[in-house]
Amino acid sequence: MDKDPKELAREEEYSFRRDDPAAGDQIETLLDQHRDIELDELLVELYDADVAYLLQHLDQEQRERLLLRLSPERRGLVLLELDDEERKDLLETLTPRQVAEIVQEQESDVAADIIEDLPEETTTEVISMLPQEDRRDVAELLSYPENSAGALMTKQFASVLETSTVKQAIQSIRRATMQSDDIYTVYVVDAGGHYKGHLALDKLILASSRTRVKKIMETELLPIPVNMDREEVAQMFTRYNFISVPVVDAQDVMVGRITVDDILEVVEEEASEDILRMGGVSADETLTSPIFQSSVKRNIWLFVNLLTAFLASSVVSLFEATIEKVVILATLMPIVAGMGGNAASQTMAVIIRNIALGDLSPSGLPRALVREATMGAMNGILQGLITGLGVFLFTGKIVLACVISAAMIINMMIAATAGTAIPLVLKKLNVDPAIASSIFVTTFTDVCGFMSFLGLARLMLPYLVS
Amino acid sequence: MDKDPKELAREEEYSFRRDDPAAGDQIETLLDQHRDIELDELLVELYDADVAYLLQHLDQEQRERLLLRLSPERRGLVLLELDDEERKDLLETLTPRQVAEIVQEQESDVAADIIEDLPEETTTEVISMLPQEDRRDVAELLSYPENSAGALMTKQFASVLETSTVKQAIQSIRRATMQSDDIYTVYVVDAGGHYKGHLALDKLILASSRTRVKKIMETELLPIPVNMDREEVAQMFTRYNFISVPVVDAQDVMVGRITVDDILEVVEEEASEDILRMGGVSADETLTSPIFQSSVKRNIWLFVNLLTAFLASSVVSLFEATIEKVVILATLMPIVAGMGGNAASQTMAVIIRNIALGDLSPSGLPRALVREATMGAMNGILQGLITGLGVFLFTGKIVLACVISAAMIINMMIAATAGTAIPLVLKKLNVDPAIASSIFVTTFTDVCGFMSFLGLARLMLPYLVS
Repeated sequence: MDKDPKELAREEEYSFRRDDPAAGDQIETLLDQHRDIELDELLVELYDADVAYLLQHLDQEQRERLLLRLSPERRGLVLLELDDEERKDLLETLTPRQVAEIVQEQESDVAADIIEDLPEETTTEVISMLPQEDRRDVAELLSYPENSAGALMTKQFASVLETSTVKQAIQSIRRATMQSDDIYTVYVVDAGGHYKGHLALDKLILASSRTRVKKIMETELLPIPVNMDREEVAQMFTRYNFISVPVVDAQDVMVGRITVDDILEVVEEEASEDILRMGGVSADETLTSPIFQSSVKRNIWLFVNLLTAFLASSVVSLFEATIEKVVILATLMPIVAGMGGNAASQTMAVIIRNIALGDLSPSGLPRALVREATMGAMNGILQGLITGLGVFLFTGKIVLACVISAAMIINMMIAATAGTAIPLVLKKLNVDPAIASSIFVTTFTDVCGFMSFLGLARLMLPYLVS
Repeated sequence: MDKDPKELAREEEYSFRRDDPAAGDQIETLLDQHRDIELDELLVELYDADVAYLLQHLDQEQRERLLLRLSPERRGLVLLELDDEERKDLLETLTPRQVAEIVQEQESDVAADIIEDLPEETTTEVISMLPQEDRRDVAELLSYPENSAGALMTKQFASVLETSTVKQAIQSIRRATMQSDDIYTVYVVDAGGHYKGHLALDKLILASSRTRVKKIMETELLPIPVNMDREEVAQMFTRYNFISVPVVDAQDVMVGRITVDDILEVVEEEASEDILRMGGVSADETLTSPIFQSSVKRNIWLFVNLLTAFLASSVVSLFEATIEKVVILATLMPIVAGMGGNAASQTMAVIIRNIALGDLSPSGLPRALVREATMGAMNGILQGLITGLGVFLFTGKIVLACVISAAMIINMMIAATAGTAIPLVLKKLNVDPAIASSIFVTTFTDVCGFMSFLGLARLMLPYLVS
């Protein structure tokens, strides 16, 4: 509690203990006692992400005062590190003038990200307050579809003509670093702005200042079309180990660049989306999302599941007469349905992940289907036999054991096939395979599991009741 | 088929069509007809990852001949782009001498990655063939635990003393670029090799050559301890937008560096692991894994699931007498168990993802528990009432409707609590929350669902049979 703030900052820096309550307490104390100079010293030592984290634990009045201690540029960077919900809440408390002051200090992609989260009524007002060039850049970025390369890129980059010298390339870096912090590459364009190649800074540093750019530039970078989906852009980066890539419009004119740190975020977000959607949660829910809103979204999903559960149970109801005669069927039927569900989950996890990584396209369906169906048959036979053996040992009923074995083999083969085909069909229909697969596939395995087990049981009823 | 290889290469380059069968056909034709010069031209145009992709579709003899067309350095980079299994297979076909030739051309981390995948008996032989310095670096990297920062880092980096000038820093880049392709940063160390700060190349380029390094260096990079878990390292990169970070030993001596493109791979791998494990598949299964091996691993998981399914069904068997009297209970019980499972999946998806992103530690349990339990109660009441209403409308039985409502509310509250607590407890026990959560939690919700529904039904039996 009474730690020296500098010592605290150093601890924070070296031990990464963001959840250390002492740091929050310290900030609160400094704010309450208006010890502004110490506060400024502490803030300098902290990362933007950590300031954002600490900000979350302050009350409204403290937040506003803390933000005012930061430069407008840093205010924007801290805003960007907040969760979406909290950023929106905080932006609502600022006047359009205050937002404009922050936005005009940012690189174009950060500016666009902040403006996107403004309440509708103030967006136009904020944009109108920006200097003309910023206004144009931001308007352009906002015009691209949400998940496109265009929405991800920044408009600030260093570029030179093919005919320039190394000296001129260095001047272009000087200009670019005034607007942007992360310059790793100088792009080479022709007089029409068409992308031609690039110069890595380490190569540039070693070249003599009068060397022509054309002589030392590299050409192996893939320019990314401005409308490419960000998931595909991320696949390019992972596959080819890019650091910074030019983005071009339909005429091959370079309009921006995307760097790998943006991609890191995309990869994490896309993975989060898949994991959350596979679990039946909306793609943006976190532990800090408002409970009521999260609950509404979850209930929609639960309700759809309820309908499919009724569907599966209506299959069971067809066989009530059979169950009444052989009640142990009721005990065993969840095993058949559940194991089908498990087999389907296994298949779906592999398929969905391979789709996401770009290793499986709809054209790869036949091969994947053969693999999964083979495995479904192998695993179904093995687990079916084990289950049959177990049932026989417990009940001594050989016919019942055969019925459950057969039903499980059938259901697990169906599960593997459905678990492969449904995600790929959804992908082909441009529906996220993760969002809808579990619902369709589990209904499928439940229905097929009950149907095969109880159906076979009804067929064999004379032998089961004896 | 008869496309000009250059044209083909250009297509490959600009349209990213890795799964274009024509590219593979073209390579095969060139190999078969021994048109080596055209083949070399085509290979120059392709990315390492694409060569690796095409390699997979060649037969053994063609593979070996294609690899021989590549320089030893590139051979290693292509090897690295193959799936683990295929890399191991291919390495087995090479002599220790051939492997050593490849390995000594690589940066230390690539070298270590390749050596790690060698068959045990040749590892020592290959290492002994390396030049002394490489041998030491590789041995060091191999000595770090598999998922540590040490195993991830490369030993090649540019460094200068604090007292050096910009000119000397540029010389250090010259030395470093001879061993390494991706230099974005010059690290500043003291005479003992302790990490002091860094110089971004864009700042360095703009500084005058006689400026002292100490004057322009930045100090805000966090040095990563060599034994830090790679998942935590990845969290640092995402949180603080690092590009290249120094790795230090226990004495703060800089021993290597990690760059963001390595982290991109870590993030994708960790996400894959979570998705696959949540689905009940081993963390490294892909569509190209050998079927038999994948099947064995999946069957282990399925067998554990089978045991828990028997456990749940033994709960049902306790109530067979009740089901015999009110057979509709058998029809409805999967709904209660299934909806509990769905509610638990929702909670687990949020919890597991937040743990993975470093946003939830065991100390955050109480708050998460309150959030999820509240939502479990809200959602349970809503879905329970809807289900009760549905059952009443279908059957006209008010007591049955009340029983299923109550059972669902109870089970969904339990599901939310278990879905939060179990992953966090597993995390605390150092077990991957993703691997075991679904198994424990689903058993839990099945058992509780059957127990609450059938138990309540037995209590209310006199009112149900009438």
